[in-house]
Amino acid sequence: MKNRVFRHLFWTKVPITLYFIFTLTPYASAQTKEHEVDALFIDRIYDHSLTDSRCYPWLEYLSLQIGHRLSGSPSAAKAVKWTQSMLDTLGLDSVWLQPCMVPHWVRGEAEQVHVIGSKKQGTYPLAALALGGSIGGKVQAEVVEVKSWEQLDQMGSAAIKGKIVFYNRPMDATKIRTFEAYGGCVDQRVGGASRAAKYGAVAVLVRSMTLRLDDYPHTGTMHYDSAYTLIPAAAISTVAAEKLSQTLREEGRAKVSIQLNCKTLPDEPSYNVIGEIRGSSKPNDIILVGGHLDSWDVGHGSHDDGAGVVQSMDVLRVLKTLGYKPQHTIRCVLFMNEENGLRGGKAYAKEAERKGEYPLASIESDAGGFTPRGFSFEGNESVFGKFFDKLETFAPHFEPYGLKFTKGGSGADISPLRGMNGLLSGYSPDSQRYFDYHHAETDTFDKVNKRELELGTASMAALVYLIDKYGL
Amino acid sequence: MKNRVFRHLFWTKVPITLYFIFTLTPYASAQTKEHEVDALFIDRIYDHSLTDSRCYPWLEYLSLQIGHRLSGSPSAAKAVKWTQSMLDTLGLDSVWLQPCMVPHWVRGEAEQVHVIGSKKQGTYPLAALALGGSIGGKVQAEVVEVKSWEQLDQMGSAAIKGKIVFYNRPMDATKIRTFEAYGGCVDQRVGGASRAAKYGAVAVLVRSMTLRLDDYPHTGTMHYDSAYTLIPAAAISTVAAEKLSQTLREEGRAKVSIQLNCKTLPDEPSYNVIGEIRGSSKPNDIILVGGHLDSWDVGHGSHDDGAGVVQSMDVLRVLKTLGYKPQHTIRCVLFMNEENGLRGGKAYAKEAERKGEYPLASIESDAGGFTPRGFSFEGNESVFGKFFDKLETFAPHFEPYGLKFTKGGSGADISPLRGMNGLLSGYSPDSQRYFDYHHAETDTFDKVNKRELELGTASMAALVYLIDKYGL
Repeated sequence: MKNRVFRHLFWTKVPITLYFIFTLTPYASAQTKEHEVDALFIDRIYDHSLTDSRCYPWLEYLSLQIGHRLSGSPSAAKAVKWTQSMLDTLGLDSVWLQPCMVPHWVRGEAEQVHVIGSKKQGTYPLAALALGGSIGGKVQAEVVEVKSWEQLDQMGSAAIKGKIVFYNRPMDATKIRTFEAYGGCVDQRVGGASRAAKYGAVAVLVRSMTLRLDDYPHTGTMHYDSAYTLIPAAAISTVAAEKLSQTLREEGRAKVSIQLNCKTLPDEPSYNVIGEIRGSSKPNDIILVGGHLDSWDVGHGSHDDGAGVVQSMDVLRVLKTLGYKPQHTIRCVLFMNEENGLRGGKAYAKEAERKGEYPLASIESDAGGFTPRGFSFEGNESVFGKFFDKLETFAPHFEPYGLKFTKGGSGADISPLRGMNGLLSGYSPDSQRYFDYHHAETDTFDKVNKRELELGTASMAALVYLIDKYGL
Repeated sequence: MKNRVFRHLFWTKVPITLYFIFTLTPYASAQTKEHEVDALFIDRIYDHSLTDSRCYPWLEYLSLQIGHRLSGSPSAAKAVKWTQSMLDTLGLDSVWLQPCMVPHWVRGEAEQVHVIGSKKQGTYPLAALALGGSIGGKVQAEVVEVKSWEQLDQMGSAAIKGKIVFYNRPMDATKIRTFEAYGGCVDQRVGGASRAAKYGAVAVLVRSMTLRLDDYPHTGTMHYDSAYTLIPAAAISTVAAEKLSQTLREEGRAKVSIQLNCKTLPDEPSYNVIGEIRGSSKPNDIILVGGHLDSWDVGHGSHDDGAGVVQSMDVLRVLKTLGYKPQHTIRCVLFMNEENGLRGGKAYAKEAERKGEYPLASIESDAGGFTPRGFSFEGNESVFGKFFDKLETFAPHFEPYGLKFTKGGSGADISPLRGMNGLLSGYSPDSQRYFDYHHAETDTFDKVNKRELELGTASMAALVYLIDKYGL
């Protein structure tokens, strides 16, 4: 264990210097001792998580027995009930459901999208998934390919009226963090329909948000601007996008037929699932760990965000099992409706404000169950500097486990807490594989590695422990 | 790009300090400029590797068209020929084959291993693979389970004579680096047969070296001590190990039948495959990148070590494509026979010594095609301190890509170069998934992620570039 504790002193000079300063003064010696105590407890967290955690079997159940769970669906209701029942077994101080109304969009029968009468390829199918929130409908029209908003605006009504707009701007493979690449083109999916409808388009097809070249379409949320006609919107696989683009290049034109059978039903009642260990001295200051319980309606939603759900539940179980008694309230929140409405996140923040709870630190895991790389932190300017000074003292504890602290975004579900002056953090696993599976049929249980998932649980539990012990 | 170059200055204070010192003096200013030049070139290496590399399609061919390739097998010969032909297309200064004689062990018909007449389970099969180098044979005997050498020695001949010894010490899941856990129990596989034969055992079964609980046996090399009788040795899956252990626990005894059809044929001629870009000013100082071309005779050998092979080839291609003219000779070596003899590594070192070549730096990739975490370095004590001072100046270039430098082991193939006073380095990808696939039927092409593989190529090319430019 010692080895692991001091492994990080090896290469970095700063901690070595600190180490010597500490050992030369009585005050510092106490500090060093406390550092060792913490390192040993964090070791216990990791050891327990890697040998006796529950997150992996929980994820198996959530993935294979409940499956995907879009807001408003019967399986989302099952997931609420089941996670509540699991939290009930952990001996927490409270477990409860927090109501919220959620959108209820249904896909209906499978999408039919075809290129019609290509000279070279004949009529051929494009693997497609309606975007979440899209209206249904049946259209057949010529396609125009668009790679940028400038290009769309330049084309204008003359080129677009009556056509299907095909957004084919790919993710940038040179971005090391794949989330940056996603951020660089998801605007096509979210806003593409209305921006095309403005010029009279009758439907849109969007290249899937993935760096892989394969035949699985990736769905995701989209929003209509009510100023324009609502038109059907679907994602097509990257292979389909390449093929359609090739037909356009080679033949100068392509006609596509689209049939989407989706629709939006009235809002449904649903819930955030919450469990907590009450703080002994500061029960009204909350350290939150969370993920989102809903998923898209394809695959198992195992990485997005089954992983975050089971890790958050397991953080409380691990700390409880190791006998840790927190000063602050440690709360696990399984948010409903991150994918297409954020109603759970908004309901949680509203209730926190109403009850006068202070969200000291909120940590979201919603980037997949991959090997840990670090935590990303953000917060209100007025207090963030102070937080960050304290976080710097925690960072060395994570070096033996390969995690780094960075400034940056946190998570969607906790974003409504932004105004309340707490620390917001996103757990950051390795991002290379995330968009291979994101919102696609391929986001299944077998894509999650047990140890990588468990290391995430341990990393979050260790951060919760340090924040609880030392405050911010 | 700028963003990425200076991303690492964000959190670490040391580089920020250095940055200001550099900007305040003319000397330092030149240094800073050079740092920027390097950062931009390294950016180009990563950009090119992530958009236009060859390693992934090469690995696909090696995995799916050639497949596994144990030393001495026809597919190993095919792999030699094919990788040579690929290197021939790259416009290198030389490509050649370096001969070596290799062991030729063949598995023969599939292993048959059964528990015979268990009271509770009846007769049931144990998923097994003969260990590489084992003799064949057919035995049936009672089993004794052993977890440590002390236990074996205590049992002695009285308990072991005429029995099958079942080594069931598992890998330690609490080790963060899985290679440490492997190191903690691979001695059972390598030396277990002779240590059991010493006490009269008739065969050994070894729990597979993996952290997963599944039904795939993992093979690997073993050595006989010629002082004792040679007895058959096989790995059984972790599920089989648990089941056999349960039968022993519940029934107090278990009889097992083993039939292995493997044998060792006479040595075969084979080759290391080598390509190089000759250095302009120090052609006799070699910067080596390498992996091993042979694999075990199950799965595709994609992570072990197809990944290292195609990455090493691609490092030369990337540097060549970007127009880099090295001072030192940059050499890609695809070693033969790492798995069961190291004959390629030994032949290479012998030839290097004969020709008076200086192995300035040798970098081996033999830990799978996973997301990069860093490089591990070792070297002769007399010069290593000097190397390490220089390496510290390179390290900041890798921070934006998430790689760290550590002291530690390098690679088996380059280990025979140890006496020649060069730097030895092991490329260190994330280790969490490696032993899921290692030496098993599951080490297949689909287990390798394209981007993770490509990032490895880029990381190795960047290190080669810096060592070549600045020396050690």
